[in-house]
Amino acid sequence: MLDKNSSTQNISGYFQLEPVGSKLADLETPVPVIDVRIAHRNLVRWQEHCDKQGLKNRPHIKTHKLAGFAKLQLALGAHGVTVQKLGEAEAMAAHGVSDMLLTFNVVGESKLRRLAALNSRADMKVVADSEMVVRGLQKAAQASGKALSVFVECDTGMGRNGVQSPAAATSLANLIAQTDGLHFDGLMTYPKVGLRREAQAFLAKAKRAIFAEGLDVPVVTSGGTPDMWKDDDLEGIDEYRVGTYIYNDRSLVERGVCGFEDCALTVLSTVVSRPIPNRAMIDAGSKALTSDLLGLTGYGVARESNFSRVYDVSEEHGFLDVSAMPNALQVGNQVRIVPNHVCPVSNLFDKVVLIDGERVLGAVRVDARGAVT
Amino acid sequence: MLDKNSSTQNISGYFQLEPVGSKLADLETPVPVIDVRIAHRNLVRWQEHCDKQGLKNRPHIKTHKLAGFAKLQLALGAHGVTVQKLGEAEAMAAHGVSDMLLTFNVVGESKLRRLAALNSRADMKVVADSEMVVRGLQKAAQASGKALSVFVECDTGMGRNGVQSPAAATSLANLIAQTDGLHFDGLMTYPKVGLRREAQAFLAKAKRAIFAEGLDVPVVTSGGTPDMWKDDDLEGIDEYRVGTYIYNDRSLVERGVCGFEDCALTVLSTVVSRPIPNRAMIDAGSKALTSDLLGLTGYGVARESNFSRVYDVSEEHGFLDVSAMPNALQVGNQVRIVPNHVCPVSNLFDKVVLIDGERVLGAVRVDARGAVT
Repeated sequence: MLDKNSSTQNISGYFQLEPVGSKLADLETPVPVIDVRIAHRNLVRWQEHCDKQGLKNRPHIKTHKLAGFAKLQLALGAHGVTVQKLGEAEAMAAHGVSDMLLTFNVVGESKLRRLAALNSRADMKVVADSEMVVRGLQKAAQASGKALSVFVECDTGMGRNGVQSPAAATSLANLIAQTDGLHFDGLMTYPKVGLRREAQAFLAKAKRAIFAEGLDVPVVTSGGTPDMWKDDDLEGIDEYRVGTYIYNDRSLVERGVCGFEDCALTVLSTVVSRPIPNRAMIDAGSKALTSDLLGLTGYGVARESNFSRVYDVSEEHGFLDVSAMPNALQVGNQVRIVPNHVCPVSNLFDKVVLIDGERVLGAVRVDARGAVT
Repeated sequence: MLDKNSSTQNISGYFQLEPVGSKLADLETPVPVIDVRIAHRNLVRWQEHCDKQGLKNRPHIKTHKLAGFAKLQLALGAHGVTVQKLGEAEAMAAHGVSDMLLTFNVVGESKLRRLAALNSRADMKVVADSEMVVRGLQKAAQASGKALSVFVECDTGMGRNGVQSPAAATSLANLIAQTDGLHFDGLMTYPKVGLRREAQAFLAKAKRAIFAEGLDVPVVTSGGTPDMWKDDDLEGIDEYRVGTYIYNDRSLVERGVCGFEDCALTVLSTVVSRPIPNRAMIDAGSKALTSDLLGLTGYGVARESNFSRVYDVSEEHGFLDVSAMPNALQVGNQVRIVPNHVCPVSNLFDKVVLIDGERVLGAVRVDARGAVT
């Protein structure tokens, strides 16, 4: 089952590649380049860990937004994928991905119609954290003529969406179970980084209370790449959702979750100006790297300047600190930037380029780019 | 010449509108909605000011990325547009826009070929701040069989691209003037906010030195929305480039450049969760609002909650502070967010929606979205 064949040919088989030359120097910049062997290694490592732990792996496609990688994740042993928006689910369904957990409340007539259409042709699971959301989901299930699986989203410390207590989770689980067309599928949370133990305690308490009502809790699902390797907090968790782990990024390196050698996606860019010895201006700004800081200083680091920082960005300019190597990098040289936060970077580009080391394999369309509704 | 007809019908005529319903409640969210009367008023006000000052107006299309608005700006009296990337120029040229200043060094064989193709069919002006860039431009001009107009980019305090001194500007102007196929067209700068007077002094000194070499300096071009209304620093400036002024945003309101009533673009979003009285969760996160702060606290403000703040964002979640009106806003209600920085917001969406007050006119494709190369 586990497709551990890491040959470039095997991995490329999951994608419709467009020719863009064979060398990095052939590429127009800025463009994200994804080393498929590193990505594959990241996927295999986590899948093997999940298999060993008896943990179900439900990777989040919001990071890569590529049907090819979703299918590779499934081939490696993931038992489904996670999506954040209907548009992402539609893009994946168009490529035959079926088992999807949509971890965002679906609200509004028009979106509920889209959910109904999706539920007719795919195996959709959704979430709710209020009666109003549940009432909407009921309509979608009825319109699709097929039951809809619903998880109760629990706010276990993140302070975002979710019911606020195990008692509220129990009450909403009861409502779902009693609603025609809906099936109560379990509990969902996205814990705050470093609070997974608190999350686990909340979920365990809710699960006991729901059992006491005579209901089953088929799946308890949690997630998050920063805490993914901390086994001791996983008690009671059946399923884990991780997104960033496929590519990794500077924020995860700084947190000690991985090394720069595990970062599969870098933003290839070109030095366009060398106005002073300490500054190289590159063509990747906030419209390529985003302005996500995640608590870091600067907007990314360049592999070619010993991981020195992109210390500022305009929309199309990156300001690279080259004070440690003032004679390096001339106009026309390429640099590869490890971005702070890789997920929103994919979402900026219509196409990304797959590579194997220095070899360019081809460009692929980002299937769910901009799928924000 | 000045198309001051602010009727919705007239403005809509510049766009290919796709039907998406007639009311805001019909729209799926998040989506940027642009009030065309406010945008038109912003454009007319600035054009009239430029006409009165004898200042040439060369608006930057990076903010709206829409050929329709570029054509409206030209109809109102702009004598050309500014673009930041070749892809933006190509998207505008495809809709018949011709007079374009590309204010970003064009570097690399492949991009120089694209520039040559553009120069054959449009009236292209470009910039340079080093001999290497000039040598590339020479090739592009030769390949296009047509002279290319080149401005010297001057770093007048921004610390970004640009020659570092009036003497360096003079030397590069000489090189351009002596290079076959290139025409020296003048000086270009993007001054740091609040340093326009320093910029003007740099440019004046460079201009005198270049005159002393026996060269003409046809145009001195500066730009920036935050300082656009400060007439006293404009001495010696022939042309002004502004982008954000068409839509405006929270950063400009906070700087006193405009009021909220002048913000033409807001991000329509929906309340999807009301977990606690003080917090409304909306479906616009960093993939809709960006994480640009521009020195502000929070990621935007909601018109419907008395301009209270989106105090945090995840990729698809916005955290709206409703502590001042804890009983307002229920799941399903729409809110309109004034983003901190409007330019990168347009770039996230394949389509935006034009409105007139509460009336929806239609959706338009963002012609140059993602045109990052």
